[in-house]
Amino acid sequence: MATFMDVHRGMTGITDEQLREAHAADLAIQDEEGVSFEHAWADPDSGVVYCLSEAPSPDAVQRVHERAGHPASEIHPVPLAV
Amino acid sequence: MATFMDVHRGMTGITDEQLREAHAADLAIQDEEGVSFEHAWADPDSGVVYCLSEAPSPDAVQRVHERAGHPASEIHPVPLAV
Repeated sequence: MATFMDVHRGMTGITDEQLREAHAADLAIQDEEGVSFEHAWADPDSGVVYCLSEAPSPDAVQRVHERAGHPASEIHPVPLAV
Repeated sequence: MATFMDVHRGMTGITDEQLREAHAADLAIQDEEGVSFEHAWADPDSGVVYCLSEAPSPDAVQRVHERAGHPASEIHPVPLAV
């Protein structure tokens, strides 16, 4: 497993409820891809959302996000953390 | 206080030690700006580094990063989190 930060763009005006629904949609199917979404942070003004996950690959992260209806714009492995 | 995610670009090849040194440099002066850097994640291949902080403003986040020698490329308030 590795740690990933993925970035969604274009979610301008996202609400707290919408973020929770999107996160819940990921959690509902993540096990099927061996992914564990840990946290998500959103900036409604710029429409940027960051998601931190543990996953076997970036493709697994994207498959979960795509099936949940919100593909990521960028997915970065973040092997270093403090 | 608010929560911020800032993004550094151009840190290709960053090492674990360099990330720890950069984070320590922030921690050493953050109190002077009322900032608290919580976590940082780095992708040495793309050179992207993400920093999560609590701070009074994005300017305060950038002042700490600039004085520590590594200004951020982007700083986003992230008022929503799960």
